[in-house]
Amino acid sequence: MTSFKPSDELKQKLYVIIFKSDTKGGKLFDVLLLIVIVFSVLLSMLESIVEYDKQYLIPFRIGEWIITFLFTIEYILRIYCVPNKKKYIFSFYGIIDFLSILPAFISILFSSTRYFSIIRSLRLLRIFRILKLSRYVKESNHLAESIKRSAKKILLFSYFIIIMVTILGAIMYVVESKVNPGFGNIPESVYWAVVTLTTVGYGDITPVTFLGQLIATVIMLLGYSIIAVPTGIVSSEMIRSHRMKDVVCLKCGNQEHDRNAFYCHQCGSRLPISKSP
Amino acid sequence: MTSFKPSDELKQKLYVIIFKSDTKGGKLFDVLLLIVIVFSVLLSMLESIVEYDKQYLIPFRIGEWIITFLFTIEYILRIYCVPNKKKYIFSFYGIIDFLSILPAFISILFSSTRYFSIIRSLRLLRIFRILKLSRYVKESNHLAESIKRSAKKILLFSYFIIIMVTILGAIMYVVESKVNPGFGNIPESVYWAVVTLTTVGYGDITPVTFLGQLIATVIMLLGYSIIAVPTGIVSSEMIRSHRMKDVVCLKCGNQEHDRNAFYCHQCGSRLPISKSP
Amino acid sequence: MTSFKPSDELKQKLYVIIFKSDTKGGKLFDVLLLIVIVFSVLLSMLESIVEYDKQYLIPFRIGEWIITFLFTIEYILRIYCVPNKKKYIFSFYGIIDFLSILPAFISILFSSTRYFSIIRSLRLLRIFRILKLSRYVKESNHLAESIKRSAKKILLFSYFIIIMVTILGAIMYVVESKVNPGFGNIPESVYWAVVTLTTVGYGDITPVTFLGQLIATVIMLLGYSIIAVPTGIVSSEMIRSHRMKDVVCLKCGNQEHDRNAFYCHQCGSRLPISKSP
Amino acid sequence: MTSFKPSDELKQKLYVIIFKSDTKGGKLFDVLLLIVIVFSVLLSMLESIVEYDKQYLIPFRIGEWIITFLFTIEYILRIYCVPNKKKYIFSFYGIIDFLSILPAFISILFSSTRYFSIIRSLRLLRIFRILKLSRYVKESNHLAESIKRSAKKILLFSYFIIIMVTILGAIMYVVESKVNPGFGNIPESVYWAVVTLTTVGYGDITPVTFLGQLIATVIMLLGYSIIAVPTGIVSSEMIRSHRMKDVVCLKCGNQEHDRNAFYCHQCGSRLPISKSP
Repeated sequence: MTSFKPSDELKQKLYVIIFKSDTKGGKLFDVLLLIVIVFSVLLSMLESIVEYDKQYLIPFRIGEWIITFLFTIEYILRIYCVPNKKKYIFSFYGIIDFLSILPAFISILFSSTRYFSIIRSLRLLRIFRILKLSRYVKESNHLAESIKRSAKKILLFSYFIIIMVTILGAIMYVVESKVNPGFGNIPESVYWAVVTLTTVGYGDITPVTFLGQLIATVIMLLGYSIIAVPTGIVSSEMIRSHRMKDVVCLKCGNQEHDRNAFYCHQCGSRLPISKSP
Repeated sequence: MTSFKPSDELKQKLYVIIFKSDTKGGKLFDVLLLIVIVFSVLLSMLESIVEYDKQYLIPFRIGEWIITFLFTIEYILRIYCVPNKKKYIFSFYGIIDFLSILPAFISILFSSTRYFSIIRSLRLLRIFRILKLSRYVKESNHLAESIKRSAKKILLFSYFIIIMVTILGAIMYVVESKVNPGFGNIPESVYWAVVTLTTVGYGDITPVTFLGQLIATVIMLLGYSIIAVPTGIVSSEMIRSHRMKDVVCLKCGNQEHDRNAFYCHQCGSRLPISKSP
Repeated sequence: MTSFKPSDELKQKLYVIIFKSDTKGGKLFDVLLLIVIVFSVLLSMLESIVEYDKQYLIPFRIGEWIITFLFTIEYILRIYCVPNKKKYIFSFYGIIDFLSILPAFISILFSSTRYFSIIRSLRLLRIFRILKLSRYVKESNHLAESIKRSAKKILLFSYFIIIMVTILGAIMYVVESKVNPGFGNIPESVYWAVVTLTTVGYGDITPVTFLGQLIATVIMLLGYSIIAVPTGIVSSEMIRSHRMKDVVCLKCGNQEHDRNAFYCHQCGSRLPISKSP
Repeated sequence: MTSFKPSDELKQKLYVIIFKSDTKGGKLFDVLLLIVIVFSVLLSMLESIVEYDKQYLIPFRIGEWIITFLFTIEYILRIYCVPNKKKYIFSFYGIIDFLSILPAFISILFSSTRYFSIIRSLRLLRIFRILKLSRYVKESNHLAESIKRSAKKILLFSYFIIIMVTILGAIMYVVESKVNPGFGNIPESVYWAVVTLTTVGYGDITPVTFLGQLIATVIMLLGYSIIAVPTGIVSSEMIRSHRMKDVVCLKCGNQEHDRNAFYCHQCGSRLPISKSP
């Protein structure tokens, strides 16, 4: 889907190596890039540990600059060899690539390196682009498809959760706020409700009144059954995508058929040849 | 299902806009109402934060009165245009609508606005009435149906849980109460048992004796397998409602058939045409 | 399965009322008994709260004696009317019934009522015997059957868990014990491993060393996937018991067949008429 | 698969008893070995409790030496009777067997017995070798197969989790680190993200800023839906392995067929006789 002037051989070679992963060179590049990214993330992790940062200031800075140097070259090459420059520069990955080198240069003026970390870690997302083209493709497709299918239900369900935690939070606020600083205001109470309903249960905020503990008990038992719902949704979708083949019936347009059905169970007409899931 | 005197055009118009969502006007009204409700909930959240309440007292009060004003008008219009006034006023939503404006007027005499929050947040439930008529209808039906189907089993299961936590709580009370203030009485011990069995684990109450920790360990491993049961129930119901079509066999009355079955597997008689799930 | 001398009408009447639940009288008795049991449990809960016990000493004692009186009569009647006395007295419920009245009489000599609670709460288990004969019978059978089916796998799985927590606990003990009193000995470390792996996470014991936190992270991510296994087991069994009918093939003895199969998929021979699950 | 010189009867007898479990002697040996292993683990647990270790120093030491003696004999016998000595010595279990006796002898010079515990506990893994040959074989195979099948997806999923917790940790570090010592550096923040996402929720590190709590809320709700994915994966695989029979179609090589299919749903050719799952 990309057109080249027959002349620039190099550009095309680079493009295939940097942007594609189906050639030997492309795979190698991806692996090397991945290593550098992981290394850069580890580095910003270590830098964030104050004592280490003091102790190994010099090597850390050198590491920073090497990584920045490599990322910069990569970025320039990407822009150089990509056919549709605008499209890349303003693409999700394009922006991340740019942001991940920018701070280093800014930090010459303002020496805070703290905020590298986030942008760097975002580069880890590239892993998925690489996985896309790897032996995981079938699994990831199957996963993605099931999740996509259940997304709508999960979304609907989370509306319900959000409303519920708001109401529960408000109730607990009324019950506990007088005696319990932890429930000092509704947002905090809602935060508590989420912590409880998701069974995370930090324990930084806990009910102290009898009524509060009673309500909390109900919320927990509720959450215990509620946790079943998203699981049920995903499970059923996954099993479905195992059992169903995605062939559209040419007559009635029904899209779900048993894996070993030859005829549409809706209208009984012969199904086109199936691509097994 | 509602009868009008041909005269009052306006009433009917209003009714369709306020109570129905299938017209353009109705949809718009619902969205606007939703925005006001969400805004009112956010407001009562902010009010509950003491420092903000002090700082922005005036704007908050004004906001309050605007919302109360809007809700009051809405309430009056609802009563005005609904055919069966009694039915609406004493309906679940009717009562909530009333209660959500009442406190504001009371607060002229008694200035505590604290308890607005709950009633306001209950109005969020209207979202579901609106969703009911939206593109989520299929998903929500499917969810609701599955949950309804599994409700009985879940209820039965929660009996079991409640009995278990009572017994476990009593046991832990006997084991720990002497040395551990956290297990000072049985209700608290039961509360602990719920916190543990649901894997919430606040850590506000934890066993300190060796025996107590041993029992706790057993309870946790128990809870770990028990958490599987409600999930299993919901999952199986969801998958079932995928696999089954809800056609009643005209001969033997069996209500469950494979999605692609043409004949009842109970009595072998032809099934009526299916509405696909 | 119980034989009577034609003479003693009364005995038989009593037996049907007290031990069976299919007659009107039997149902009534069960409900009344249940109420008394629940009441007795609530009473021992309240007694366990020191301040209440001080305040309402007299009414509590009176309540105690009323309950003990009722339970004693019930116990005597049970022994009187049951055909096989030995069998009942040494049955699980028989022993509980006896133990739930014993302490009251002992407490005349030694006034500690603390340990009533457990035995009393055990009486709650009677609920299941009553449910057995109620409208929940189908659901409870289905649940019980599925759980029974998956019990063996769950058991096998919990062996695995127990071994794992032992090993993980031992490792964490070696890593943390020097600097962290929480991991003072292996049993405590194992307790921590269980708390972590089951995602309860009290936080009463937490790793402090970097290595400790790293291992903890791995354990958690492990637990996150492991929690899937028991759920998977139960879910699959439940779905199976939906999909399968429990008819034994008369030819090959295969016990699992699709709900709508007329012929054994093992040997192809006609199946006997199915009792739908 | 093991060849013996006809001469050494004893060796062969020993080999069958020690390494195999299908004879009466073999079963007995396994059970005895298991008891000794469990006992040894319990002993190192008790030793790790300081007060006990002081009190019962002598009996503990004696116990140690008895166990070491038994394990040493076992090890020698294993080497003596196994046909392929190298293979055993450098096998996983061979190394564990060796390491589990080594420390005792070293401890003559250096008296720390602390690190016995781990290696000892690793011997518990032998249980599985024994289970392999027991009545659990069918269940364990079914479990193992399902887990193996879903391993790839779970792995893919955990990549995703690891990347996510890194990003989330980095974000929270930026948000909280200034005011919250708990988020002092990125690794700790990542540790917190794992604790939260897996719903363990120790509460040793909790967000204090409003923004922090908001992000935490999102993470929890995320985790709540995400926990569904591995469960869905395992469930679907388990159900599949119930529904599918593992017969390879001789024509098209398709490996998945409905349990009661006689013909391949891919190419329609007759399937070879099935071994029921």
